Amino acid sequence: MNKRVVWRTLSQIMLIEAALMLLPAVISLYFKDFRTLKVFVFMSVITTAVALPGLLVKQHEKVNMTPRDGVAVAALSWIVISFFGAMPFYISGQIPRLIDAVFESISGFTTTGASILNDVEKLTQGMMFWRCFTHWVGGMGVLVLTIAILPSDKKSSSLQMMRAECPGPTVEKLVPKGKSSALILYVIYGVLTGIMIIFLLAGGMPLFDSVCHAMGTAGTGGFNVKNLGVGHYDSAYLEGVVTVFMILFGINFNIYYFILMRKFIGIWKNTELKVYLSTIIVSIGLICANTLAYGVYPNISKAFRYASFQVGSIMTSTGYSTADFDRWPEFSKMILLTLMFIGACAGSTGGGFKVSRVIILAKTAKRNLRKLLHPKSVNLVKSDDKTVDIETVHNVSAYLIIYLLIFVISMLLVSLNNFDFATSFSSVMACLNNIGPGISRVGPALSYAELSDMSKIVLSIDMLLGRLECLPLLMLAAPSMWVKKLY
Amino acid sequence: MNKRVVWRTLSQIMLIEAALMLLPAVISLYFKDFRTLKVFVFMSVITTAVALPGLLVKQHEKVNMTPRDGVAVAALSWIVISFFGAMPFYISGQIPRLIDAVFESISGFTTTGASILNDVEKLTQGMMFWRCFTHWVGGMGVLVLTIAILPSDKKSSSLQMMRAECPGPTVEKLVPKGKSSALILYVIYGVLTGIMIIFLLAGGMPLFDSVCHAMGTAGTGGFNVKNLGVGHYDSAYLEGVVTVFMILFGINFNIYYFILMRKFIGIWKNTELKVYLSTIIVSIGLICANTLAYGVYPNISKAFRYASFQVGSIMTSTGYSTADFDRWPEFSKMILLTLMFIGACAGSTGGGFKVSRVIILAKTAKRNLRKLLHPKSVNLVKSDDKTVDIETVHNVSAYLIIYLLIFVISMLLVSLNNFDFATSFSSVMACLNNIGPGISRVGPALSYAELSDMSKIVLSIDMLLGRLECLPLLMLAAPSMWVKKLY
Repeated sequence: MNKRVVWRTLSQIMLIEAALMLLPAVISLYFKDFRTLKVFVFMSVITTAVALPGLLVKQHEKVNMTPRDGVAVAALSWIVISFFGAMPFYISGQIPRLIDAVFESISGFTTTGASILNDVEKLTQGMMFWRCFTHWVGGMGVLVLTIAILPSDKKSSSLQMMRAECPGPTVEKLVPKGKSSALILYVIYGVLTGIMIIFLLAGGMPLFDSVCHAMGTAGTGGFNVKNLGVGHYDSAYLEGVVTVFMILFGINFNIYYFILMRKFIGIWKNTELKVYLSTIIVSIGLICANTLAYGVYPNISKAFRYASFQVGSIMTSTGYSTADFDRWPEFSKMILLTLMFIGACAGSTGGGFKVSRVIILAKTAKRNLRKLLHPKSVNLVKSDDKTVDIETVHNVSAYLIIYLLIFVISMLLVSLNNFDFATSFSSVMACLNNIGPGISRVGPALSYAELSDMSKIVLSIDMLLGRLECLPLLMLAAPSMWVKKLY
Repeated sequence: MNKRVVWRTLSQIMLIEAALMLLPAVISLYFKDFRTLKVFVFMSVITTAVALPGLLVKQHEKVNMTPRDGVAVAALSWIVISFFGAMPFYISGQIPRLIDAVFESISGFTTTGASILNDVEKLTQGMMFWRCFTHWVGGMGVLVLTIAILPSDKKSSSLQMMRAECPGPTVEKLVPKGKSSALILYVIYGVLTGIMIIFLLAGGMPLFDSVCHAMGTAGTGGFNVKNLGVGHYDSAYLEGVVTVFMILFGINFNIYYFILMRKFIGIWKNTELKVYLSTIIVSIGLICANTLAYGVYPNISKAFRYASFQVGSIMTSTGYSTADFDRWPEFSKMILLTLMFIGACAGSTGGGFKVSRVIILAKTAKRNLRKLLHPKSVNLVKSDDKTVDIETVHNVSAYLIIYLLIFVISMLLVSLNNFDFATSFSSVMACLNNIGPGISRVGPALSYAELSDMSKIVLSIDMLLGRLECLPLLMLAAPSMWVKKLY
């Protein structure tokens, strides 16, 4: 890779993070919390200082960013921002152990929402804001933000970086220019978050809480400012708002662009959207029936309220919970675990394997069965009336294999904690898919605090792998990535 | 499919089963158990009677068996033999419920070894023998036996059927003629079983027990004649013999043919064998260290004895147990669960996903990563110095997808029992991979008796799917299979 290009871009990203840290500083000022204010200003200065040398380094004019450089930037920038993002927690003493602070920060930026905090309400407002704000920034992507804000010197670089950061098997640009695409995405994202804040305020939620909840929902993250989460307010209206917006943020953002452009045919023909919404509806129905049959809820409206919230939360990988779903009957829990794996739509802020990948996998399997039955027929994998090219089918299969491999290795390492099988399995599931809470010892009513340091490190890596969809980080580990390419 | 060809072949297989039933009849006669004798003679007559019409049906001379017909025969014959094989258990009243009898019979023929019996020692000797004998027949394959015994009227039919029944991504014939290949396989199988019986007798195990244990081991099944299994005899020598033979029966039988032919180079270059054996060694080492660290065993020789037995048993999908591994620390259990998934070598009597498939998957993933790093390089998947053709890579990927899909659906259905997650997960794992015992409520110290009828049906189907490697049964469900092909 071209180390200068990578270094410079990383420095730009750090500079942006330093600027972002001023926001919680302002919040702290508003709440007259000068200790937290000082922490954020200090960290902002430090981060800027670290970024400076890279910004001043000389650039060769004609060097373009290669796909490799894009991958390296994506992988390294997520490590760098998570590390600097952890510092406010650590130096303020609000999360006294460094490993826990880094875990919390990675969990924030990757929009996982797994927490080592047993009592969130002990944090200062500035810290609460920063914690939820990392979700919002991580949701749409740090690189996408960089592309949207900074002047791009190279045309090719924006697409290379977006491709490495954006979730899903294929990345389409909305408009020919990468910078404009990134801007449009952030505008849609910001407007949707704004609308959600208004809806929450209308339900009587305080402004600070509304902003934090909206950011946690928009990034499909899962952090919030109350120990009981949305359940704290015990309001069916507020839960309904959060449910609807979680589901909205799990949809491919291209859909919103189509709505803006009035290209309704593109929405109607979108297989992923149809599968996504019908999976949600079927899952809610099954969980309602199952929990009612076991008498968990007294009536159908209660069952619907809790089931729809949880299905929306898990499928979009948000990880909010209003019910301790670990106490639901096993069938309902199994549905949630299946949804954890499937995840949200590609091109959304949600995590998981992505609905579109599952569709491609299912169609590949169907094609192979058909081929066995009719060996001489021509069988192509189609999606949205378009033939999926064979390379995409390959890549999705390879991704599944790599995903399973990482899953198994992580489970083996986490099982060294000697907690029960459900804990080992679901903690990896919840972190690799960027969801947050699992079942059993890492269930919604508990935290990740109990785990060993080794498990926290493994799960931190899993969160990063999940957010970047495995490949960039794995490629970073290849020695040939570090060799300068001969031009 | 050509219904006449399929019907005729099925009838031949039933006739063989009727003949096989006379063996436990002879055993019953020896033990002077005339009630059981009558049961087997009666069922043998009934099975012959059902087979007769199909044998008398006229055949068109020139009709060859198509790949489809082979698949249909494989799928249907396993259903038919399991059903008739269950009848002795049921009509003798030794397993009073039909669904349990069918579960036990499927578990036997598919060499799973999952049992609904809480007290094996209550069975009569004839019934014990039949139960273990189903493992022996199912291990090498019912169709392979049919090919080996009966005169084949069509040249092409034997390969079509073997391909549908034999485990692994590719089936190579040992010699050009299918019939000879089948015979060679059964001779090797019989000789190895015989040697094992001698070793067991030398350790002081009674003859009847030795024969039953050898059959259970050869088929990598897991049924035996004592409630405590091999642990009953509490002999390190006997456990060692069983360990070694379990591992031997998990090796591709082509290797033994190579040994006979003195083609040692073919053994040395066999990647699957190397990976298989090194996985076993590493797993034993890790489990020894882990169980010693937790103080499960007082010294290394005890730890080695129990760890090696269990690793051999689980990796080859036999399912014998001398230790209640459900009480082992979680890391050791997780290793066993991983081995359950990997399974034995292709072309052995063992179950699971197969080592060779795992190798192909790992290489496919590596190839894709390399391609991302060096987009212009030519990357082929290689195994044993030969390039694996792209269609095999496709098929293995498709198989993984179908396998996971069946896994998830089965888990959802089994979770309706409302047992804990480890039970739902491991019961499907143990049945789909033809292993036998799982962990938690279906652990080695317990049986499948507690499960609901629905779960027993789901798991029975999983056992058949696992033994036939999913595709034949799924193809049988396709409507186009049942339409007569136009010649």
